[in-house]
Amino acid sequence: METKINRRKLVALLTGAAGVGAAATVAAHADQLGMKNDPAEVLQKVPWPYKPLDPEKTAQRGFDGYYKSECMYGAFEAIVGSVVEQLGSPYKNFPFSMMKYGGGGVHGWATVCGSVNGASAAIQLLSPEPDALIDSLFEWYEQTPLPDVHPAAAKFPQIRSVSGSPLCHQSIAHWTKVSGKPAYCPERSERCGCLTASVARYAAIMLNKQMAGKPIVALGLPKRTRGCMSCHEKDGPVQDIRTKMECGGCHAPEMSKHPPNSQG
Amino acid sequence: METKINRRKLVALLTGAAGVGAAATVAAHADQLGMKNDPAEVLQKVPWPYKPLDPEKTAQRGFDGYYKSECMYGAFEAIVGSVVEQLGSPYKNFPFSMMKYGGGGVHGWATVCGSVNGASAAIQLLSPEPDALIDSLFEWYEQTPLPDVHPAAAKFPQIRSVSGSPLCHQSIAHWTKVSGKPAYCPERSERCGCLTASVARYAAIMLNKQMAGKPIVALGLPKRTRGCMSCHEKDGPVQDIRTKMECGGCHAPEMSKHPPNSQG
Repeated sequence: METKINRRKLVALLTGAAGVGAAATVAAHADQLGMKNDPAEVLQKVPWPYKPLDPEKTAQRGFDGYYKSECMYGAFEAIVGSVVEQLGSPYKNFPFSMMKYGGGGVHGWATVCGSVNGASAAIQLLSPEPDALIDSLFEWYEQTPLPDVHPAAAKFPQIRSVSGSPLCHQSIAHWTKVSGKPAYCPERSERCGCLTASVARYAAIMLNKQMAGKPIVALGLPKRTRGCMSCHEKDGPVQDIRTKMECGGCHAPEMSKHPPNSQG
Repeated sequence: METKINRRKLVALLTGAAGVGAAATVAAHADQLGMKNDPAEVLQKVPWPYKPLDPEKTAQRGFDGYYKSECMYGAFEAIVGSVVEQLGSPYKNFPFSMMKYGGGGVHGWATVCGSVNGASAAIQLLSPEPDALIDSLFEWYEQTPLPDVHPAAAKFPQIRSVSGSPLCHQSIAHWTKVSGKPAYCPERSERCGCLTASVARYAAIMLNKQMAGKPIVALGLPKRTRGCMSCHEKDGPVQDIRTKMECGGCHAPEMSKHPPNSQG
């Protein structure tokens, strides 16, 4: 059976239920890229079109997503999922569940906090100038008492801690110290859900700001870390590392025995 | 202007230049999911269809990708890009360049090694049982003298090192110690390109094995790390951390002053 179709009908068909506005966005993006035959080709072009987000709704969505598929999925889906709802197909078909891999610092290995990993991926996908946003996110995450969001569905009193590191391992270890709770308990799990909400919210605020042409404020590295880096980082006399992380989060014991000038 | 089209023509149109085999894969996947109207919907369904990879070609592609958009992109694109070439549209339209964010342990923050971050994302996207593959990848990465691939285009003599950690920071710091080279130099950069090739190759071998129904061999955690975890991890008397990382990569100073039973 054959049916008659023109370009407009084809685009409408491919964008499915997303409506006329979304179809127009896809068509405009496709035209801009000189694409005619394959509507899914627009997916390749990074950054994707952005739509301003409601930070509080994004936070709630991050919290809900955490309980579905952990922290990386929660943060990434809260941000990108909220944008693609407004863009329709093909964007809305991104394989979101792949982001489950980053849970617990990548499948429980406690490397980079999954919410930061997911938010950074979302920023790269949606921002024309992602670098300043990712740096600002990491500095804020290291230095701020978090979580700073407490969704209505959260059951436990909130205990905030400063991670001093973007790593899941340090972030949780510092929270167990401050809270007196073990690393495996419902309170810790809820804390990570709230943290996912905080990170998704902060990223949404920054993306909104950047898209509105407003300046992105960064906290900068702490003084003692700048002291370490003056020797160990680029152009220093030792130059044996490449990092932007705070040093004290992991290396406090060595730092206490180190020449004073390196402690800032 | 209108043109006549049927379902077969539409699928062929959407899969573009990928050919009849790819169109058949997309159509089969769409039918299996009960999808009729939006060919891009198949993207949502994780895992994506897998096609066996040539490990050596995947390694070379990882090395080339590293010099295009750094380590996370290099590893992810080498694996997933090689598969989607065989699947055609819509899979081939994945926004690969978003993976640039993970370079240097996420935008230079030296958290998780980008090649491991990218390979883990690829495994989650392509494997029906990703957990064992990701654990095996991390254990191999921590304990093996790497890089173990030396592409023909590599210019410098290869210096291998054991990272003792999945973190970019430790991986590079240990290499600078073994090589005597600084963290910022062409040799270090090439080493990370070769490492990206090694990780992409290892992931391709594991994916091929799993898809062929062969067992996945894991190295397991070192004895001294198991000693630490018997107190600090789940069900231990302290239980203040959640991780699978080796402890000695960062905590050697504390471990040397710690009760002997914790050093395995």
